[in-house]
Amino acid sequence: MTEKQCIDTLGELLAPHRRQVERDLADWLVEPQTPGPLAEAMRYSAMAPGKRLRPALVYMSASAVGSGRGWDLARRAAVAVELVHTYSLVHDDLPAMDDDELRRGRPTAHVMFGEAMAILVGDALLTRAFGVLAESGDPSSGRLVGELAAAAGPAGMIAGQIADMGMCDVKPGVEGLRQIHVTKTAALIRAAARMGALAAGAKPDALQAVSRFAELAGLAFQAVDDVLDVTGTADELGKTPGKDAAGDKRTYVALLGLDRASQLGRELTDQAVDALAPLGESGGDLADLARMLGARTR
Amino acid sequence: MTEKQCIDTLGELLAPHRRQVERDLADWLVEPQTPGPLAEAMRYSAMAPGKRLRPALVYMSASAVGSGRGWDLARRAAVAVELVHTYSLVHDDLPAMDDDELRRGRPTAHVMFGEAMAILVGDALLTRAFGVLAESGDPSSGRLVGELAAAAGPAGMIAGQIADMGMCDVKPGVEGLRQIHVTKTAALIRAAARMGALAAGAKPDALQAVSRFAELAGLAFQAVDDVLDVTGTADELGKTPGKDAAGDKRTYVALLGLDRASQLGRELTDQAVDALAPLGESGGDLADLARMLGARTR
Repeated sequence: MTEKQCIDTLGELLAPHRRQVERDLADWLVEPQTPGPLAEAMRYSAMAPGKRLRPALVYMSASAVGSGRGWDLARRAAVAVELVHTYSLVHDDLPAMDDDELRRGRPTAHVMFGEAMAILVGDALLTRAFGVLAESGDPSSGRLVGELAAAAGPAGMIAGQIADMGMCDVKPGVEGLRQIHVTKTAALIRAAARMGALAAGAKPDALQAVSRFAELAGLAFQAVDDVLDVTGTADELGKTPGKDAAGDKRTYVALLGLDRASQLGRELTDQAVDALAPLGESGGDLADLARMLGARTR
Repeated sequence: MTEKQCIDTLGELLAPHRRQVERDLADWLVEPQTPGPLAEAMRYSAMAPGKRLRPALVYMSASAVGSGRGWDLARRAAVAVELVHTYSLVHDDLPAMDDDELRRGRPTAHVMFGEAMAILVGDALLTRAFGVLAESGDPSSGRLVGELAAAAGPAGMIAGQIADMGMCDVKPGVEGLRQIHVTKTAALIRAAARMGALAAGAKPDALQAVSRFAELAGLAFQAVDDVLDVTGTADELGKTPGKDAAGDKRTYVALLGLDRASQLGRELTDQAVDALAPLGESGGDLADLARMLGARTR
């Protein structure tokens, strides 16, 4: 399998999910009475081209464990998790944070619309995420709100950002880096999978399998990201490459070297696939997704 | 009634509610696994001395319409709305926004902890607000999440901030200013009252009375705020006075002069009290609150 074919295959797997979430984003992102310039900036960030990995995980987890029920709530969870992901990118790119000017192949929100608007766009996307979930009217929506808030909040994604920016102490070496990634990246990926499973009425065993799968796949995703930050080009990545290395950030490549970091990505991918065993054949699509993400070049 | 007595009376009315929400904030604000420096900065902002007006409105609305049920959910709604209010202050004070250095009588979060931490503290407080609501496990929590997200989101409080900062066009004169305040301030105050009423199982008529009361009381609150910005001292206000006038902001005082702005505050207060008529005697505490807020000097 050449690298080009691999991308095409990942693209094919994600394409229908991407189309679904982009339709729903277009419908649900902007409430009536949203000021025009704010709506424009929200759309700019949320509708930028992206893999839409987290929404795909919501749908695929729902399909892997469920019987077709809870589909409206799963669609809302997919939009919500993508909005939370997008908000985190907008705020992380701010001058006071990572100070990045390129994201998803386009100028970052603060470069396009100014810093004040970028702060407010992030706030708006985060708030809207919970609104979209709640508007389902599904009695399970409160449970999903709790999952999303815990994963995105001060003991989840924000804790990871704090640690990643060196604003709190973490353990040295690979163990500390894993803890950063568990919170900064894997928590939200795990929440995507859990929300899909919960929307579909997953039983506890299936919910646990999907949770463990997603956390390991999220860690693998980050290990591959570290490798691509060194080996990729801006055109491939849609963001500034070499940024982590230039910023003296702790990465798997910096700690382990390129080869062992690549190997770790493969090992975590294998562990993720193994975690799907309790789902039997229903876990096939999720396993394919993990393998293709492990082999991606962008 | 002298001004000093009036403050004491408002303080007495709010005191038990303030104690309740501060106990619950202390218990629910920080999840386990929150990094220490983030937890410290969250506490600094959320536990700073404040009137706790929005939580009081949650409790008082619940009491005015209800029969004692939904109290756990009302307590969570009170914490959630105060967290949203606090996040909005932290982000509004940022250098790229209103660039203020004094809030609730203390240095603002970015002055104390740096700009990156202040952005993340705001994000954390906003996310935690929805988490606290969802953790109730009450089947009505989803409805309250929707109320809070709509009021705080891009068609609510954030729309008001966009308009207030001149980032979108608004109608000229008093009409435009009212529209700014309806979204920037009154929407969240209205949501506080509605969440309390909904938690307590309000019937539609009572919910509507409380909603209209709170919106008008919120507008009155803002008119009085504009007056106090001109007449108050930093010591009384706990924030930098004269800030609005210095920043060429559109205010009721700038548009109408001090006397007519004060009169508008009184008129809106009277209208708010009138809106409580459907509640009969149960609306007495809310009416007292509106009157005392209208006569406040800080």
